[in-house]
Amino acid sequence: MVEKLNIIKVGGGVVEDAASLASLLEQFARLDGRKMLVHGGGRLATSMAASLGIESKMVGGRRITDEQMLRVVTMVYGGLVNKNIVAGLQAKGVRAIGLTGADGDIIRSHRRPLKRVKMDDGTEQMVDFGFVGDVDKVDAQLLVSLIEGGQVPVVAPLTHDGEGHILNTNADTIASSVAQALAEHYDVTLTFCFEKAGVLRDADDDSSVIPLITEEQAAELIREGIISGGMIPKIENAFLAIHRGVRQVVITHSENIDGTKGTIIKEK
Amino acid sequence: MVEKLNIIKVGGGVVEDAASLASLLEQFARLDGRKMLVHGGGRLATSMAASLGIESKMVGGRRITDEQMLRVVTMVYGGLVNKNIVAGLQAKGVRAIGLTGADGDIIRSHRRPLKRVKMDDGTEQMVDFGFVGDVDKVDAQLLVSLIEGGQVPVVAPLTHDGEGHILNTNADTIASSVAQALAEHYDVTLTFCFEKAGVLRDADDDSSVIPLITEEQAAELIREGIISGGMIPKIENAFLAIHRGVRQVVITHSENIDGTKGTIIKEK
Repeated sequence: MVEKLNIIKVGGGVVEDAASLASLLEQFARLDGRKMLVHGGGRLATSMAASLGIESKMVGGRRITDEQMLRVVTMVYGGLVNKNIVAGLQAKGVRAIGLTGADGDIIRSHRRPLKRVKMDDGTEQMVDFGFVGDVDKVDAQLLVSLIEGGQVPVVAPLTHDGEGHILNTNADTIASSVAQALAEHYDVTLTFCFEKAGVLRDADDDSSVIPLITEEQAAELIREGIISGGMIPKIENAFLAIHRGVRQVVITHSENIDGTKGTIIKEK
Repeated sequence: MVEKLNIIKVGGGVVEDAASLASLLEQFARLDGRKMLVHGGGRLATSMAASLGIESKMVGGRRITDEQMLRVVTMVYGGLVNKNIVAGLQAKGVRAIGLTGADGDIIRSHRRPLKRVKMDDGTEQMVDFGFVGDVDKVDAQLLVSLIEGGQVPVVAPLTHDGEGHILNTNADTIASSVAQALAEHYDVTLTFCFEKAGVLRDADDDSSVIPLITEEQAAELIREGIISGGMIPKIENAFLAIHRGVRQVVITHSENIDGTKGTIIKEK
């Protein structure tokens, strides 16, 4: 029998709000069975950078991770956020173990090549995003052995290139990549949780949750502009995970990670 | 047969100097067999705190870890230093995995109670060191299972109290405590490496290394003032480890961690 595994990805907006994070950890601790957490860090890095007098450089709405910013995200995501989540979960009896992709070589990536980006003024430009990693491979072996030993991995949004460099990596991408790799070993449900009730028809109305989205429907919702902005890569990551063996993806509020509410993403 | 395990503790002075750290990691990567690294962080936290406008408070020569400083050491030791060491070792083919005492609940501590401290003006005062942990117990089980799985633990000088708090903890104490716990499973050599050639007769002369120190000799060297300052707790940690089953403790330069040079600490 294939065991079930719940992978919960918690967004930066939840992580940076102490009360929301505490509530999420409380619920996560109550989830039965094998489980794992992937966290973002979001604006905590931006505010730490500002305190250090480091300017956050954005191009076309996306962050540039220069050497100074890499130091900040390594500290904030890998240290402050990750270790406080781990200590918080331990206090609730969860045997949490904090990891970045560098630890145990679990997630190898390469530095993102120059990319053509549409600028605010409508022109296009080749942009170097700096120390940002695109995931190459996940080594599921250590994760499986930790999980089977009763540990609960807590993964920070950092990977490494195998040549000594930490790389800043999107937490949704990490969650999706890890879910895909672990789908060879478990019956995986991947839950993206954040500050909204799910994928909404009306961004300002939490009661307008779309309960189920198939791939065909997703394409239409994107065309209609109902799915837009940061939700598009989230949905793309969801389908990627499903095509590669993840049983179910859920997008929901951080108050409802037990799978009873939110948007379910299904192939058809 | 009991397998050998090398535990190397590398001091803050080496960690904060990029060239010294690179050289240490190079040597560490070449060490055969089961091994583990414990690192300090030293002045990197002080300088990061200064960049953030946080004053480092010292009393009687020792750091006070208030809430702001705890955030800094959690970031710097658990994130910046630990993850860069891990990524650097991975690049040399070492399957490093970074851990704090909170991860997997490997090192539980309690917050240090108020302590009577001799002040600079000769008076004594009860001092609250803040979020500083004194080690209660080490759970060797996860460490053993990682080591037997071919992983190399890299431990940061942070522990937790089991109630959700990270605590700043002396790296020598962590190294000694972990060595004691692992001595039940391995034939352990604990090496403290730093910027000096060993325990020196003349602090300014690296050729004055004392090759062997027994407990009786240590007491005499402390009386004579040859062993003084920060070396005293290091020596105390060394004998504590030996009394609790660690086979050998070596104090040596970070360039010589292969056990051929430096000061050997023996019971008699």
